[in-house]
Amino acid sequence: MNPDIRRERQNASFNVTELTYILDGGPEKTKRRREIESLVFSDPDFNAEDPNFLSYSERYDQSVRKSAQMILKLREYAIADPEEIHQYKSCVHPGGPSPLDLHLVMFLPTLLNQATPEQMERFFMLTWNLDIIGTYAQTEMGHGTHLRGLETTATFDPATQEFVLNSPTVSSIKWWPGGLGKSSNHAIVIAQLYSLGNCHGLHAFIVPIRDMSTHQPLPGIVVGDIGPKFGFSEVDNGFLKLENVRIPRENMLMKYAKVEADGSYVKPPSSKLTYGTMVFVRSIIVGESARALAKSTTIAIRYSAVRHQSEIRPGEPEPQILDYQTQQYKLFPLLATAYAFSFVGQYMSKIYHRISGDINDGDFSELPELHALSAGLKAFTTWVANSGIEVCRMSCGGHGYSRSSALPDIYVAFTPTCTYEGENTVMMLQTARYLVKSYRQAKEGQQLSGIVSYLNESQNRRLQPQAVAAQPPVVDVNDLSSLVEVYKQRAAILVEMAAKSIHQELQRGKSQEDAWNGSAIELVRASDAHCHYVVVKVFSEKLGEVGDTAIHSVLSTLALLYAMHGIAENSGDFLLAGLLSAPQVLQISVRIKELLSQLRPNAVALVDAFDIHDKKLNSVLGRFDGNVYENMFEWARRSPLNATEVHESFHKYLKPLRAKL
Amino acid sequence: MNPDIRRERQNASFNVTELTYILDGGPEKTKRRREIESLVFSDPDFNAEDPNFLSYSERYDQSVRKSAQMILKLREYAIADPEEIHQYKSCVHPGGPSPLDLHLVMFLPTLLNQATPEQMERFFMLTWNLDIIGTYAQTEMGHGTHLRGLETTATFDPATQEFVLNSPTVSSIKWWPGGLGKSSNHAIVIAQLYSLGNCHGLHAFIVPIRDMSTHQPLPGIVVGDIGPKFGFSEVDNGFLKLENVRIPRENMLMKYAKVEADGSYVKPPSSKLTYGTMVFVRSIIVGESARALAKSTTIAIRYSAVRHQSEIRPGEPEPQILDYQTQQYKLFPLLATAYAFSFVGQYMSKIYHRISGDINDGDFSELPELHALSAGLKAFTTWVANSGIEVCRMSCGGHGYSRSSALPDIYVAFTPTCTYEGENTVMMLQTARYLVKSYRQAKEGQQLSGIVSYLNESQNRRLQPQAVAAQPPVVDVNDLSSLVEVYKQRAAILVEMAAKSIHQELQRGKSQEDAWNGSAIELVRASDAHCHYVVVKVFSEKLGEVGDTAIHSVLSTLALLYAMHGIAENSGDFLLAGLLSAPQVLQISVRIKELLSQLRPNAVALVDAFDIHDKKLNSVLGRFDGNVYENMFEWARRSPLNATEVHESFHKYLKPLRAKL
Repeated sequence: MNPDIRRERQNASFNVTELTYILDGGPEKTKRRREIESLVFSDPDFNAEDPNFLSYSERYDQSVRKSAQMILKLREYAIADPEEIHQYKSCVHPGGPSPLDLHLVMFLPTLLNQATPEQMERFFMLTWNLDIIGTYAQTEMGHGTHLRGLETTATFDPATQEFVLNSPTVSSIKWWPGGLGKSSNHAIVIAQLYSLGNCHGLHAFIVPIRDMSTHQPLPGIVVGDIGPKFGFSEVDNGFLKLENVRIPRENMLMKYAKVEADGSYVKPPSSKLTYGTMVFVRSIIVGESARALAKSTTIAIRYSAVRHQSEIRPGEPEPQILDYQTQQYKLFPLLATAYAFSFVGQYMSKIYHRISGDINDGDFSELPELHALSAGLKAFTTWVANSGIEVCRMSCGGHGYSRSSALPDIYVAFTPTCTYEGENTVMMLQTARYLVKSYRQAKEGQQLSGIVSYLNESQNRRLQPQAVAAQPPVVDVNDLSSLVEVYKQRAAILVEMAAKSIHQELQRGKSQEDAWNGSAIELVRASDAHCHYVVVKVFSEKLGEVGDTAIHSVLSTLALLYAMHGIAENSGDFLLAGLLSAPQVLQISVRIKELLSQLRPNAVALVDAFDIHDKKLNSVLGRFDGNVYENMFEWARRSPLNATEVHESFHKYLKPLRAKL
Repeated sequence: MNPDIRRERQNASFNVTELTYILDGGPEKTKRRREIESLVFSDPDFNAEDPNFLSYSERYDQSVRKSAQMILKLREYAIADPEEIHQYKSCVHPGGPSPLDLHLVMFLPTLLNQATPEQMERFFMLTWNLDIIGTYAQTEMGHGTHLRGLETTATFDPATQEFVLNSPTVSSIKWWPGGLGKSSNHAIVIAQLYSLGNCHGLHAFIVPIRDMSTHQPLPGIVVGDIGPKFGFSEVDNGFLKLENVRIPRENMLMKYAKVEADGSYVKPPSSKLTYGTMVFVRSIIVGESARALAKSTTIAIRYSAVRHQSEIRPGEPEPQILDYQTQQYKLFPLLATAYAFSFVGQYMSKIYHRISGDINDGDFSELPELHALSAGLKAFTTWVANSGIEVCRMSCGGHGYSRSSALPDIYVAFTPTCTYEGENTVMMLQTARYLVKSYRQAKEGQQLSGIVSYLNESQNRRLQPQAVAAQPPVVDVNDLSSLVEVYKQRAAILVEMAAKSIHQELQRGKSQEDAWNGSAIELVRASDAHCHYVVVKVFSEKLGEVGDTAIHSVLSTLALLYAMHGIAENSGDFLLAGLLSAPQVLQISVRIKELLSQLRPNAVALVDAFDIHDKKLNSVLGRFDGNVYENMFEWARRSPLNATEVHESFHKYLKPLRAKL
């Protein structure tokens, strides 16, 4: 092991494994996770070349191979718990997505949730045994987050008892579904249902797209890969053009809505049934934000501990770059954020499970709040993690740019979370809609409960943006709960400002809709402040659960850094509202520097606690043993361009060029 | 042409071509640039497959082919002006870098600048005729920006009149030089010179690395490609390990420093000779920041004009997404920034040429200021452009993630500018060093001139951070020159705060060096504020040169938006220092929204004025004609995975899997 990184570990003030238990949710969880990791990483069937050395087609090929192996092994080991399947999968495909993902996480579950017993009979075993390989074809070239705009049609033909599916325009071609391009032979297609001349909105249809035996596209089907992307290079995201494709009436998923033989339409009992899934997926993404930052900070902090550069004091050896204040200022707030988001992920998962119990009992009362919270936190955490990964990459200097660092791959695999499952700005505006609605209810005298209850208080103690420094605030900036309070008040004020902006626009004679659009900047800011408050609050509350003194101490430092850094980055908000005075903001800048120094000896131990297996991290810079340079050299020698000493282009172009000059 | 985008163009309030002239520096420049573009784009020898569809090795191969063609054509057309060569090259390689770049922009110029007449005689024609293909091998695995730390040694052996070159450690292996891996047969190697037992620091040596005829590596040379990167996929960035490689004494570049036959060392006359090149390269990068943002905003704004989504008013057709306030708030400040940086690029180029005249006359007086300015502005503009490209990409929703948008390629080609030619944080600290030094000089009564002269004033009218709202500031927030003044005062205050932080650290007994490191966060902020002030100032001054009323009007709106957006983003600084009051900051938020509405009708025309040829932009989303969807479909069908209807992985893995389940 590299002596620098060994020394770092000796200096840690807390027990790393105990902290890992907290992150995993208990020692048994850690144990089981490590067992699953060992199952995959010791399995020679999953040995594979670094995808970065492969061509586009080879990457896809290798990923299909591993996916097929995985399905066999999961059944062999009888791993059935969704969380364990996810853990196993994330070791098989440490880079992220793979071609059969949508078969497993969308096609099969949709069948389970929306198929009638007859349909289950027809489709389930075929799907289970991979005779049917399915995907979920929703987004189109022209429409993503705004689902109502989808143009694909499914028109019922009573004469033949079939639906006729069509892509009526270029923009209606299904676009992006994973596994659609080459892997799947069936797709659940979301289309506008027409029957007896009426449109009944979006419904799901099981559409065979390739012959189950030859895998050739079926008549009327134009299907293929949509081409290279920023990342997701293992996945055949596809297009699907439907030209008068006929499927039996019984291929519409009819557990809820129905089309009868005579073409009459039966409505589903509730429109809120799909809310639960959206909330679930978005709360998963919050956890992904935490994991992406955990990986990135692990790489950057370990590398910063072994990299020596330049000089602080002349004549002395080059210091570890982790000793530079600017490096600490880049990385430690992100480290704190990784912890914050981990705890928010746990929190979201907990309330999701609590509320989904209620939903099963037909109680939808808490769903709107959870829906709003999950939308906003999905956007808030993915945006922060997205830019944070890049800060980590660039903090590794030139080597961060090499694929051997893994940071480019982490970024391109993660960045779509800002767009898919609800585009982030749209998500922020959804949350804002809930906040403004709640604000108005509170103003009308309703007593709000839940996380927005702070909007009640704001009606009592109204803070005016204009009142800066008029009433010196009584905030102890060194006290975390005091800072949580300040974040809360900031959120309350920004919600109020957004609501007032709408009000002003209305008074100028604008329509509701234009007033909303004309206040969208303020609305996004309000949601952002709301989410920021929730994160600080959840982190602070988590500390109460931590018994171990040493861990409590280091987590408290992280929480304080998270809160203070957020204030420093948004000091305008706090000053504008008179929540903090100028001297307090300056005091916070000084305290941040003290917190950085305090964290310095524990930095490596804090990333070690994320306990990310070297094979999962797959980063030369982030190796546990810190032996970076030798391994970077070894990695580079495997580059495809090094397959021959002399590349053919020399003989083809460079040598002949001389004769012509 | 797409009717939406045609309508946008009809609504423009100014003459687009006239604005293009301003950006190019005059109508003749525009004419010549277009001529060069047409030379390349109408030349069938440069027809090439989209590199995104090629393997790593094929991309390199294609790029070598085009580079070889380019060298022939440049001589055929007798294009010799460096700017015109650059324009030609940027059409041949619209994606950015190429394998022979360092031969042309580093090896050849270094020879011209640092070779003796005898060396020119030996090397120049061979290099000109590509018998010698050269690169510039400076950075090592263990050292980048901190050059003094380089470990490669060149030890003079008087017995044989040779230098013996060695890579004494793994970390000393040369790493990253473009064209080093496979293309070059010579390298200018930067090494620590040892003679007669003394180390004389870094010097440049011409080292043959491959046989000029067979291209096989020479004895003692271990050379190869460093492997796949985030981008730069056309370039064989390489490694070079030197094992007792002997070169004649005459291969050290000896125009300035020398080693005599007896081993005695002759110092170069000045240590500032290399400053000019660094300043030049960094000022070029400022222009690159502008171009990267110009490309990205062109794509995002044109696409936002043809993309329709969701609804603002129920029942009406889906609006262009450019009508959403949040979309405008993402894109228009970046559009303003692209203009701002274009003018700063012009400004840097102008003062560089003025000062390099002085340098040739032996007058180095303005060099420190220019050096500091170029370092800071390089960092400031690349950081802003770097994150701005990604904002543009994500503003295009899912399609921005497709390689067909070109935005991923723009990002990965641009992002290294934050690291190379001086890592950005290090650059900011270099600028800060100059600022703090100037501040101290002013404090000691010296009268500063040049751009830092504002530090004089700050000595007179001292603004105290604590004095928020005590003295209501007299600033007309609607007046650009008034805002320039406010930016200037912010810079002055942040420089002062950084200087005071150092002072406080010293008073606590820290060493100079630790005090500096302990104030690094403040120092970077001070540099950032200084650069921000320069950009606002240059933009504002540029308006004075614009005669055309309509163009003056729209550029004024952009300049105001740039300045106000910067204040809104950093409002804490302005409030903290009492430079603006809370109501003024709120007023600025309202004004920003008005400016967005004002710019809306001119948005497409403003990106059209960048006049980026479709073949150079290479973006399906950013096409001039706006026909996005048809062309996206056409592009996708060329994906390598679509070469066959059924991918072999189906027969290899998926079909056999069924039998095992």
